[in-house]
Amino acid sequence: MKTSTSIPELQYRHGILATGNRIVPEEVPIAFSYGGSTHAVMMATPADLEDFALGFSLSEGIISGPADILSIEAVMAGDGIDVQVVLADVTAEALTSRRRHMAGPVGCGLCGIESIEQAVRQVPSVEAADFCLTPAQIAEAVKLLGDGQSLNRETRAVHGAGFFVPGQGLVALREDVGRHNALDKLSGAVIRAGYSGRQGAVVVTSRLSVEMVQKTAALKCPILIAVSAPTALAIRTADEAGMTLVGIARGDEFEIFTRPDRIISGVTAHVA
Amino acid sequence: MKTSTSIPELQYRHGILATGNRIVPEEVPIAFSYGGSTHAVMMATPADLEDFALGFSLSEGIISGPADILSIEAVMAGDGIDVQVVLADVTAEALTSRRRHMAGPVGCGLCGIESIEQAVRQVPSVEAADFCLTPAQIAEAVKLLGDGQSLNRETRAVHGAGFFVPGQGLVALREDVGRHNALDKLSGAVIRAGYSGRQGAVVVTSRLSVEMVQKTAALKCPILIAVSAPTALAIRTADEAGMTLVGIARGDEFEIFTRPDRIISGVTAHVA
Repeated sequence: MKTSTSIPELQYRHGILATGNRIVPEEVPIAFSYGGSTHAVMMATPADLEDFALGFSLSEGIISGPADILSIEAVMAGDGIDVQVVLADVTAEALTSRRRHMAGPVGCGLCGIESIEQAVRQVPSVEAADFCLTPAQIAEAVKLLGDGQSLNRETRAVHGAGFFVPGQGLVALREDVGRHNALDKLSGAVIRAGYSGRQGAVVVTSRLSVEMVQKTAALKCPILIAVSAPTALAIRTADEAGMTLVGIARGDEFEIFTRPDRIISGVTAHVA
Repeated sequence: MKTSTSIPELQYRHGILATGNRIVPEEVPIAFSYGGSTHAVMMATPADLEDFALGFSLSEGIISGPADILSIEAVMAGDGIDVQVVLADVTAEALTSRRRHMAGPVGCGLCGIESIEQAVRQVPSVEAADFCLTPAQIAEAVKLLGDGQSLNRETRAVHGAGFFVPGQGLVALREDVGRHNALDKLSGAVIRAGYSGRQGAVVVTSRLSVEMVQKTAALKCPILIAVSAPTALAIRTADEAGMTLVGIARGDEFEIFTRPDRIISGVTAHVA
């Protein structure tokens, strides 16, 4: 399935109308099914679906590692793609049991508390990871991400997420019309390539909402770098997880919101 | 509840480290409950919650207009907000019946087809709306949106959505950390202000995914203008709905992807 397409259009510039073409990203409903039952549908770029399934399963806490998945198969289904995941027995039983607790639509039936707690669930600590980066390496990671985004160079309309390992550069890079999808795909790619999240930093083109921090923590990665700005909840969550959060990273400039000691030696206090 | 907060941080610029502060947007889990049962939780900026509830209910097809809602009440719930919506009897019965058909987690239990069809459900046609804009009005709408984004001026990290009515300017503008939320809040604001979506154009700061087209169609609005680019599926969906899709709208320039006749008189052919 192709990831972009050329579309005829009209271009209006300073009073002059011309016909033209623009390359736009494809966006397709992608369902994830476990044991034949659909768990969620994402609108995403139809590429790197095995990475996506692995990373999504990890982010959602359905699996704890690639060994929990027996097989992944992408099947065309109507106007979309059904990604059918077969889990190892123990993992499948855990998911079935979890589903049984999700009675009715969502939540406890009295108020939104259960659903709200699920949305801001505590993230795993990445405190123990002693991985560090220099300011020059942060600039390098951001530059490599920009240079490597081939789909974005075509369309100027997709997000990118990369995994930077010092001395090796960007060992994985994934793109998607959704920033959450790009990060899930990256997580899957990192693990499939045999890396641990502890060995590098995640670098993304987007803003940092709390979900980006949750996904990075699920990958066990201690440093998250973004070209754009974080939300207050993303900062608080990163602080709780012991994660270093770097935002507004452009050229030779960036801002550190939590755990600066992994970048500036001697600065050990939490910022937030 | 405040919508932004000032956070201490470290700023690294060209080798020099300084302490600083940055204003970042708040992001809070907001649950929507109907008849005491939670339907969905969104991570959103905690503002304009009545608009949000109304617009979300409309976008999701839960209501067909404001008369279907008897009351909306926002209640603090744990770390988030539970927005409790009481529907009129007939509407509540329709929702209960719809939920009964959503057996198990999501979908038919065999494959992702049902969930995929739901994700790309056909949007209502806006064909009949004869509302038109001139190129100058498109530039005006985009400029007014940029000028009016007060939360984004503080944080540089939120999306905006406005409703432009010729001769009246931007009659409503809403902001949120999520672009879908911003548009849902706008829809609610437009309807609560007594406007029909047919009277104006929606203008947004973000990219155009298919969901943005679905929400604009649910508002019955025939023109959607975006500062950034559309996806292929957004273009195809707008074309099917008879909606005029304008993207990459900046200053005196924009591109038209579907139904240019509402902007350039005499050009009646569909572009896509």
